[in-house]
Amino acid sequence: MKARVIVTLKNGVLDPQGQAIEGSLAGLGFGGVSGIRQGKVFDFEIAGTDVEVARSQIMAMCEKLLANTVIENYAIEISN
Amino acid sequence: MKARVIVTLKNGVLDPQGQAIEGSLAGLGFGGVSGIRQGKVFDFEIAGTDVEVARSQIMAMCEKLLANTVIENYAIEISN
Repeated sequence: MKARVIVTLKNGVLDPQGQAIEGSLAGLGFGGVSGIRQGKVFDFEIAGTDVEVARSQIMAMCEKLLANTVIENYAIEISN
Repeated sequence: MKARVIVTLKNGVLDPQGQAIEGSLAGLGFGGVSGIRQGKVFDFEIAGTDVEVARSQIMAMCEKLLANTVIENYAIEISN
């Protein structure tokens, strides 16, 4: 199965990288953009056929490695 | 409008970061995972009400700053 995990900063956590991108965009003339937050995306194949088993395995992967759950949220998408 | 841009490496472009994550996951006991590719996600607000105008503006932003189109693809999602 194909899986995608999107890791984003929690609300209230400062995102200096996002602020830098926003400043650069404004400098390039894209002034209508605000509140940029940068996150990470992981695409991978996961073995097995049971979506719920895969989901719980991916949740464990997020908790242990892919996301820092103190400051980050994660969302899981699985497609066959 | 809320917009999300997902930037991923093109097929065939080496992803050492993804390989490192795959190795770490295997070390943690998550052996069923393969072909990990890491990408970036940008969430932001964009001014205006016309989705097509916003989309063309975001495409220009991607071409100029958010993605390196030599080695990266980008996908745009816009929601009101």
